[in-house]
Amino acid sequence: MILRGKRIDLTTGDILVAVMNEKDANKLDLKVSDRIRITAGNKNIIAVVDISKTGVKPGEIGLFNDAYKKLCEKNKCYLLDVTLEQKPASIYAIKKKLFGKTLNKNEIYTLVKEVVHDELNAVELSYFISACCSYGLNAEETINLTKAMIEFGKKLDFGNGKIVDKHSTGGVPNNRTTMIVVPIVAAAGLVMPKTSSRAITSPAGTADTMEVLAPVVHPVNKIKSIIKKTNACIIWGGAMDLASADDKMIKVRYPLSLDPEGLILSSIMAKKAAVGSKYVLIDIPLGINTKVDTKKKAIHLKRQFINIGKKLGMKIKVIISDGSQPIGRGIGPVLEARDVLWILKGDKRGPEDLKKKSLKIAGMILKMAGRGNEKKAKKILESGEAYKKMKQIIKYQGGDPNVDPNSLNVGHHTYTVRAVKKGKIININNRSISKIARIAGAPVDQGAGIYLNVVKGDKVDIGDNLFTVYSANKEKLNQTLEIFSNFPVITVQ
Amino acid sequence: MILRGKRIDLTTGDILVAVMNEKDANKLDLKVSDRIRITAGNKNIIAVVDISKTGVKPGEIGLFNDAYKKLCEKNKCYLLDVTLEQKPASIYAIKKKLFGKTLNKNEIYTLVKEVVHDELNAVELSYFISACCSYGLNAEETINLTKAMIEFGKKLDFGNGKIVDKHSTGGVPNNRTTMIVVPIVAAAGLVMPKTSSRAITSPAGTADTMEVLAPVVHPVNKIKSIIKKTNACIIWGGAMDLASADDKMIKVRYPLSLDPEGLILSSIMAKKAAVGSKYVLIDIPLGINTKVDTKKKAIHLKRQFINIGKKLGMKIKVIISDGSQPIGRGIGPVLEARDVLWILKGDKRGPEDLKKKSLKIAGMILKMAGRGNEKKAKKILESGEAYKKMKQIIKYQGGDPNVDPNSLNVGHHTYTVRAVKKGKIININNRSISKIARIAGAPVDQGAGIYLNVVKGDKVDIGDNLFTVYSANKEKLNQTLEIFSNFPVITVQ
Repeated sequence: MILRGKRIDLTTGDILVAVMNEKDANKLDLKVSDRIRITAGNKNIIAVVDISKTGVKPGEIGLFNDAYKKLCEKNKCYLLDVTLEQKPASIYAIKKKLFGKTLNKNEIYTLVKEVVHDELNAVELSYFISACCSYGLNAEETINLTKAMIEFGKKLDFGNGKIVDKHSTGGVPNNRTTMIVVPIVAAAGLVMPKTSSRAITSPAGTADTMEVLAPVVHPVNKIKSIIKKTNACIIWGGAMDLASADDKMIKVRYPLSLDPEGLILSSIMAKKAAVGSKYVLIDIPLGINTKVDTKKKAIHLKRQFINIGKKLGMKIKVIISDGSQPIGRGIGPVLEARDVLWILKGDKRGPEDLKKKSLKIAGMILKMAGRGNEKKAKKILESGEAYKKMKQIIKYQGGDPNVDPNSLNVGHHTYTVRAVKKGKIININNRSISKIARIAGAPVDQGAGIYLNVVKGDKVDIGDNLFTVYSANKEKLNQTLEIFSNFPVITVQ
Repeated sequence: MILRGKRIDLTTGDILVAVMNEKDANKLDLKVSDRIRITAGNKNIIAVVDISKTGVKPGEIGLFNDAYKKLCEKNKCYLLDVTLEQKPASIYAIKKKLFGKTLNKNEIYTLVKEVVHDELNAVELSYFISACCSYGLNAEETINLTKAMIEFGKKLDFGNGKIVDKHSTGGVPNNRTTMIVVPIVAAAGLVMPKTSSRAITSPAGTADTMEVLAPVVHPVNKIKSIIKKTNACIIWGGAMDLASADDKMIKVRYPLSLDPEGLILSSIMAKKAAVGSKYVLIDIPLGINTKVDTKKKAIHLKRQFINIGKKLGMKIKVIISDGSQPIGRGIGPVLEARDVLWILKGDKRGPEDLKKKSLKIAGMILKMAGRGNEKKAKKILESGEAYKKMKQIIKYQGGDPNVDPNSLNVGHHTYTVRAVKKGKIININNRSISKIARIAGAPVDQGAGIYLNVVKGDKVDIGDNLFTVYSANKEKLNQTLEIFSNFPVITVQ
């Protein structure tokens, strides 16, 4: 069928889309999500059909920018030949998985390749995600998925040094160990090219918190030079295109907040492998409101990490940590960055729990890589070596190395919650704390969040300060008040 | 956030979409598929966010036609206020089902309501479909889904007569019993407002075949007047908006051709209930290449139909029929319509198997409704009463009642396949037959298809005509030849 090309000025960056009028689609018996090959002279593309009642007339075919650019000369796209194409090969694998069957290596590699090349649309990919939720991925499938993500993603080569890494499965507010561990192990001579995430449902990811101190998005050459000079970096992984299949799957997991284990494992491990990590410490915070809420799940996940690591030639250590309350006192990018700097500078306001956990993790990494232990980590931190290293990293990433934690801008509008009875703090609810900090504006508003004045076990009197909410916006601050009546936040008994 | 409205001239007819620039979306922490409320003066809509890198500038918000019309005066849509909205309530139900839990009545009703009102996008809906594939729907869920589809769909009232209906689960080429059963039972005084489907993956649906003889899309008032005059109609159900939730689910099932049992059952039964059917005959063709390929599945499905019918106040009879080969000789709209007319006119070329099966079904319907039996059905057919009734139906639906089956236009390009050895026909492959007919052009090209010269058990000699392929297009005819080398079609032994 010959149709006139019509540019639709929208860029999605995903699968190529062509919009046909209902009448033409019916003539070719095409339905939404069918594939067509569109040919213009010696160029051709495969696109997914969308159908429109108006806007694209019979005899026309609408092309979004990505498709238009691949097919047409500038403002010159008249007659295009449209023919029916087969569905991508991985449709069969997805359907197989959806009916509870196991996928072999070839099927998984084909799937990942087609995901990376934008050959599957969101609906098709969502069927794969849901099959992973319903049936899980077995060990072999998970390993194949991880390897395929590495193979079809970008890889970064930082040479043959001892490359170390860490990861936390998350769900615990603050818990910003990375920003203390990285300077410690880098000061000890290990290479740690740390890629971190931004917040998806939390008030801050490590990338958001680091961004308070220095830019976290850099071109690859710049990253290499930062690491060459400092042994380390703390950057946003999302801009790196490592395991890009995973990034595309995350988009489709988002609408229902789906976290099937096999996908989490392969996502984490592929990204570690892509930067050449050989020694990886995994932190699994365990607690009723974190991502891993039972000991059984935690132990299962631990075994899976070690198993996959072995298959990828990595040494993995896993700690199952206490995830029952936030680690650190500030929640939100600026408030967390302040905690980190206080610890690195040896300020007594630096929260003890975050310091202790960071030293434990740093010690384990040093040990794995044969460069010391927790005692050495403590020495590096307390001698100021780690702070010096962090200043270097901040400087080379383009921030102000001499930033004063006390002058960081927290939200101007505040509200302090006080104890209404005397007693002991028996619970601090991670989810409520995160929710309040997000409603207050974090992470978009960097200075928004919460500062906790108590931890579990503390004794309080009536009127004692439990926590303070910060926001740049009075209205948002007021909205956080709704949480208190609906959700438990801090329980005094 | 205040943004300038920009019309995007596309109409999808589905969920309302608003396109934001990446930068604005990041500012509000919005991701693809998040909901926003867009307010213009005293009008407001909820739309799903799509994100564009170019085409929509920062400060602008692109609205597809459906959203634009609801919100803006003609060519007057300047400043719009955009705020974040909650996800639709049924997201939680979908997630619950995806993790293997059972949905209650309230959850299913909410889901169907939101589907009908276009509040769920394709990805979200696909998670529900996949959960139905992975876990199935239990009897209560299926009944609630059916009832909800009826409640939130259009209903047609044809008065208090004895309204009868039939349905075949499909997969058998031709099998055009409806067009013989309807005139028989209508001639016996029963009311049969038959809504049929078009082909989705087959060479013809009943609606496509009937369309050879008369238009099958009519407004409701016209349909009521056709039924008043003739007791019956044979129309395309897809234009009726009965159980519209089902039509939306079918769109999302299409990319992977998913047919979970609970959805098939509710889809069929809701559409029967929506036209007030009280006596329904269900034909389940059983055969390795039909939709129901084991006796066990067929019996299970039969029980489910009867069970749901009971809950809806319908009497259901089910026949499990032979689906091992096509029923009738012609495959494709015109060739099937010719078979039907030959049978109705008593022409000896009318295929005996189709006639026999139609009489059985018509007899069962007459019996259920207390108006006779198969013998009576035979009398009505052989006396010409059924043909007279069909001519009436054709006439009132706007076709030519005196159409001559011998003058119907079959494809001009033909190719005849002959036996290459002497023996007995031991197999005719439904799927290959359908595939050939579709490649030849059916159902879009009405005259395309296949005419079978043999049935299973026939003895053939070398050179005997097995079947003829018809097409309006020489190239398409040649393409069918590829099938013969790749798939078994007719097996002689």
